[in-house]
Amino acid sequence: MQAKVGELREKIMPGGRAMILAYDQGFEHGPRDFLENPESRNLEYILDIAKRGEFTGIVLHAGLAEKYQSEIQDSKVPLILKLNGKSELYTEEDPYSPQLYSVEDALTLGAAAVGYTVYSGSKYDDQMHQEFSKIVREAYSKGVPVIGWMYPRGKSLFDRKSASKTFKIALEQQEKNNLAIDETPAIVAYGARIGLELGADIVKVKYTGSPESFQWVVQSAFPTKVVMSGGTMTKTDEEFLSRVEDVLTAGAAGIAVGRNVWQRKDPLAISKRIHQLIFGSQKKA
Amino acid sequence: MQAKVGELREKIMPGGRAMILAYDQGFEHGPRDFLENPESRNLEYILDIAKRGEFTGIVLHAGLAEKYQSEIQDSKVPLILKLNGKSELYTEEDPYSPQLYSVEDALTLGAAAVGYTVYSGSKYDDQMHQEFSKIVREAYSKGVPVIGWMYPRGKSLFDRKSASKTFKIALEQQEKNNLAIDETPAIVAYGARIGLELGADIVKVKYTGSPESFQWVVQSAFPTKVVMSGGTMTKTDEEFLSRVEDVLTAGAAGIAVGRNVWQRKDPLAISKRIHQLIFGSQKKA
Amino acid sequence: MQAKVGELREKIMPGGRAMILAYDQGFEHGPRDFLENPESRNLEYILDIAKRGEFTGIVLHAGLAEKYQSEIQDSKVPLILKLNGKSELYTEEDPYSPQLYSVEDALTLGAAAVGYTVYSGSKYDDQMHQEFSKIVREAYSKGVPVIGWMYPRGKSLFDRKSASKTFKIALEQQEKNNLAIDETPAIVAYGARIGLELGADIVKVKYTGSPESFQWVVQSAFPTKVVMSGGTMTKTDEEFLSRVEDVLTAGAAGIAVGRNVWQRKDPLAISKRIHQLIFGSQKKA
Amino acid sequence: MQAKVGELREKIMPGGRAMILAYDQGFEHGPRDFLENPESRNLEYILDIAKRGEFTGIVLHAGLAEKYQSEIQDSKVPLILKLNGKSELYTEEDPYSPQLYSVEDALTLGAAAVGYTVYSGSKYDDQMHQEFSKIVREAYSKGVPVIGWMYPRGKSLFDRKSASKTFKIALEQQEKNNLAIDETPAIVAYGARIGLELGADIVKVKYTGSPESFQWVVQSAFPTKVVMSGGTMTKTDEEFLSRVEDVLTAGAAGIAVGRNVWQRKDPLAISKRIHQLIFGSQKKA
Amino acid sequence: MQAKVGELREKIMPGGRAMILAYDQGFEHGPRDFLENPESRNLEYILDIAKRGEFTGIVLHAGLAEKYQSEIQDSKVPLILKLNGKSELYTEEDPYSPQLYSVEDALTLGAAAVGYTVYSGSKYDDQMHQEFSKIVREAYSKGVPVIGWMYPRGKSLFDRKSASKTFKIALEQQEKNNLAIDETPAIVAYGARIGLELGADIVKVKYTGSPESFQWVVQSAFPTKVVMSGGTMTKTDEEFLSRVEDVLTAGAAGIAVGRNVWQRKDPLAISKRIHQLIFGSQKKA
Repeated sequence: MQAKVGELREKIMPGGRAMILAYDQGFEHGPRDFLENPESRNLEYILDIAKRGEFTGIVLHAGLAEKYQSEIQDSKVPLILKLNGKSELYTEEDPYSPQLYSVEDALTLGAAAVGYTVYSGSKYDDQMHQEFSKIVREAYSKGVPVIGWMYPRGKSLFDRKSASKTFKIALEQQEKNNLAIDETPAIVAYGARIGLELGADIVKVKYTGSPESFQWVVQSAFPTKVVMSGGTMTKTDEEFLSRVEDVLTAGAAGIAVGRNVWQRKDPLAISKRIHQLIFGSQKKA
Repeated sequence: MQAKVGELREKIMPGGRAMILAYDQGFEHGPRDFLENPESRNLEYILDIAKRGEFTGIVLHAGLAEKYQSEIQDSKVPLILKLNGKSELYTEEDPYSPQLYSVEDALTLGAAAVGYTVYSGSKYDDQMHQEFSKIVREAYSKGVPVIGWMYPRGKSLFDRKSASKTFKIALEQQEKNNLAIDETPAIVAYGARIGLELGADIVKVKYTGSPESFQWVVQSAFPTKVVMSGGTMTKTDEEFLSRVEDVLTAGAAGIAVGRNVWQRKDPLAISKRIHQLIFGSQKKA
Repeated sequence: MQAKVGELREKIMPGGRAMILAYDQGFEHGPRDFLENPESRNLEYILDIAKRGEFTGIVLHAGLAEKYQSEIQDSKVPLILKLNGKSELYTEEDPYSPQLYSVEDALTLGAAAVGYTVYSGSKYDDQMHQEFSKIVREAYSKGVPVIGWMYPRGKSLFDRKSASKTFKIALEQQEKNNLAIDETPAIVAYGARIGLELGADIVKVKYTGSPESFQWVVQSAFPTKVVMSGGTMTKTDEEFLSRVEDVLTAGAAGIAVGRNVWQRKDPLAISKRIHQLIFGSQKKA
Repeated sequence: MQAKVGELREKIMPGGRAMILAYDQGFEHGPRDFLENPESRNLEYILDIAKRGEFTGIVLHAGLAEKYQSEIQDSKVPLILKLNGKSELYTEEDPYSPQLYSVEDALTLGAAAVGYTVYSGSKYDDQMHQEFSKIVREAYSKGVPVIGWMYPRGKSLFDRKSASKTFKIALEQQEKNNLAIDETPAIVAYGARIGLELGADIVKVKYTGSPESFQWVVQSAFPTKVVMSGGTMTKTDEEFLSRVEDVLTAGAAGIAVGRNVWQRKDPLAISKRIHQLIFGSQKKA
Repeated sequence: MQAKVGELREKIMPGGRAMILAYDQGFEHGPRDFLENPESRNLEYILDIAKRGEFTGIVLHAGLAEKYQSEIQDSKVPLILKLNGKSELYTEEDPYSPQLYSVEDALTLGAAAVGYTVYSGSKYDDQMHQEFSKIVREAYSKGVPVIGWMYPRGKSLFDRKSASKTFKIALEQQEKNNLAIDETPAIVAYGARIGLELGADIVKVKYTGSPESFQWVVQSAFPTKVVMSGGTMTKTDEEFLSRVEDVLTAGAAGIAVGRNVWQRKDPLAISKRIHQLIFGSQKKA
């Protein structure tokens, strides 16, 4: 078991470094994310980027994972099945992203790892902490690595009357560093820590604005590995690449990126530059 | 398994084309839908249309499927068991249509496929996404094709303060093309995409007003097949047939229709014209 | 299985006609229903009426069914176990009647059929439709007939802003025929139809005021059998018997009656007159 | 099975009479109930009363039942495991007392019977009716007697706009006899009847103020046995003993009492007088 | 079984005394608790304190327990798996701390005991009482000791209109002794008693301000053992040590402490002084 989880961790994090292609946006944001680059609506196009860009994993929902099972297998890009998801058609300040597939489903579909989004701070976070914890327990027993999308969110985070000390620290950081509340080191580090406490192998978190602050995130999650979430497309390639450098400096294991790759005119070009930053100084596994 | 699902897909979509007779209105709208053509309240009358009109499937709830099991079998029209449903006796802006039967029940009743309505955008869409996903997983493992009635609905879709970008695009389309919000390409394509992401074989969606806009729906769901929902009876036969032509031009696999057939004076006449449009250029399977 | 369900259907509906004694009022209304005729609080008294009145079934909750199991068996009156129930101690406009016993429990207690109340139109109707549907599926697989108490109820039925077309038709009928909204043919027929769609063998519904309107109910539920619910005690025997005649004329299979029998001074006398109406023209099975 | 349940019923109701010592107050009211007689906080003290006072059962939660398992066994006082409970730390007009242990747990702990509180009239009574019913079904199949604490409670009971006829009768009784609403015969008898309908062997109910009115309660629950709940400590011993006489006159099987015994200076003295009233005219089993 | 639970109780309470190191704060409060002493974010640092400070147990969530399984085993400090938890990112007056791991998970991770927080008084306390009770039943059957974090909390505790007698006593104590409502002996003793009633082996509770009042807590929980919760760091070492002395005088079995140890400059120094107080007069096990 432990041998197997180690082997699969190495598969999606060769030499401890990860470069993951996120493609669950069709569910989370809908087809409007494909308007920038219409070809991006098609998994075959995306899979080609993943393969030629030497990504260490691709994140999919079960529908695409099933319909393109043989193409994914042929590409040799490890499949990361995203086990929960929600659409933006329903909007509520306190989000809940329900579990849609099981660890068993992931294994049936040939996945090398599973992912799950945790909105700690939402009034439904009890359900998500429970679902995530059960996934980790089951995945652990079956030797499958787990990636937590740790995104603190919800009304509590914006409630200035909140008694929470974490929130008070976050407010100071927000004002001082001109960050959104869910990008402050206090909040991001807390999300990452919850990932560790519940047993995630990797946590995917937002960028906190500087290498110094991101280091606190990495330290708070240690020994769980941290990857930065790509987020919305930046104006320039350089802006994005500079963030990647920052988090690597801070000790991150890499990134999980979608729109900043496949919404661009030349997805492969930026993929290669990202690869160079993450794996450049490493011998290839 | 895969062989079986392929075989059953071919049964309800010969040559990749579908012409499905919907008859779950007794549950969804009640007997008032039968007032236009009182004979339509009787399944034997409907089954005769399905058979002589060469429909590739008939949609029923379990009660009728069970009580007329041998007649359905004799008719050779493939049975599509609708696994959820709700009545219009209870009205709430955020609808929930609960699962009433299992994939196992469908197999016991001799069904060739199963259907399920997903109201993404409702505050209960977490439950429907979960139920639908579990149905797809189970159906996939048992070789049964799944059809998703993908109908985004709920208060969020009408909330102008909503932060969702999809909604902003939909609002522009609504104003420009004089469509209901749940008929805009942005919303319909999102519903269809959720069907793909969750693994549906076919998605049933509303018409979006033009072949161009419907093409975006078809492309967003690819490789899941798209059929147009018939909806309320149009004033003339031509109005309905022109929509059928539009969606076929846009790449749809066909239609799923009820009232536009069996509320008419001559259900068989329009059935034959629809059949000609969908299968006319095809060799029959 | 099918042989068994057929046999049991014949037992509670000899020759397709039903005369059922309802005795779940101790739960639904409490002991106040026994004040009119204090002996009626005792099952032995009731069972004697059922036997001598030649009823084709008696409706009980599990407590009485268990405590008088041998007396019921000796009486040869088929037991119909009522699987759900609620008391009037809790009052809410949107009612929910939870399932209290299983089909398995019914078989253990020697029941020939099971019953369940469905309040379609209540905001909890999703739960009741689900519970009822599961009961029907299980009962069907075990060869047990199912009777649905189909009573549309809830705030939606009284909400004049409701968008439902069924409600608009019901409002017209209400005004024209001086009926309560839940006695209008539109509403009663819808409830009956839901019983058919979900697979009930018999539906128990309210009287709609005339044989003509009740025929629409019977036709909407076909081939599910329809029995009229007895309701509160009418002023005279004749008033009640005239209703029985009306529904039989309309095609009903019979009635399910409680208070109109056992709250009267001479329960046996009226039972015999009801029996004559329902079975008079029939050869006895 | 039936032999076993009969044997156990005889154990807690020798000759059909019951004298039960209630000791679940540590959960329901907390340590403040022990302030009157501080020794009463200790089960060993209570068990000694139960034994020497010749009680026919002692009511405990699982923690005490487990920690004093051998002492309870040695005392020969039959254990009645209380399967649900709630603390007064949380106060809501509509109470819910969740099931905490199973019938199986009760058997593991050596219990001769199980108890459960049902707050009919609370908006959560659907859950309690369901839990209680499942307990009765399971206990019945395992030969374990069930005692229902039938305490109608909740906002509906105080809502003067309530349409329920039971409530109207209760209001008249309240005014006429100067009783709390949940002590009126209409309400208490309804609670008792629900116990019968669901299958309880014994129901524990409040005193209704007179032997005449309590007789209606006993008759409404027949053949389920009725015991009076002791309630808060009365000013004098005589006041309490007079109530005991009243309910025995009315046909009750006995009482279930806690504070009126172990909050008194001499618990054994009053126990003996109660014993004399209940069993005095009987030969001892 | 009983032999095993006895053996494990002795392991975490040698000679009936307990000195437990709490380290679930990363989940409950987040990384901000590590700001005082940044090394405290790392389990290896904490484990070293636990080992050298001769703690009789260390409290962890499953993530850390799994990632440091071999280090924990080598340290010989017994693992206490905390089975539920919540983060302060979500703030609600009525808290719910969901179960995240099972007793089975605890055994897989090599735990010697399990812990669970119960917020009696919260509107969700029904769920927590149920979860805790099931944990105790299962742990008991597998021979694993259970520690209850008994922390009454929620809106009801602050509602001056509350009818609860416990609350009235607590209010008097609050005013007289200048305590927070959840530190009053009435409230703390009630929480402890619930732990006993549900079957906890040890309850962890707040300090009540004096040895006299804490004795009532200890007596109310007897024979369940009581340990004091360390709470936020006191200004001086002496202040904290004086509390430890108080509770030991009152009959407590020891303490469970986190921040008052590992937020200090010299965690080992204070650990030794605590150890001396708790075990000084004992022969070492």
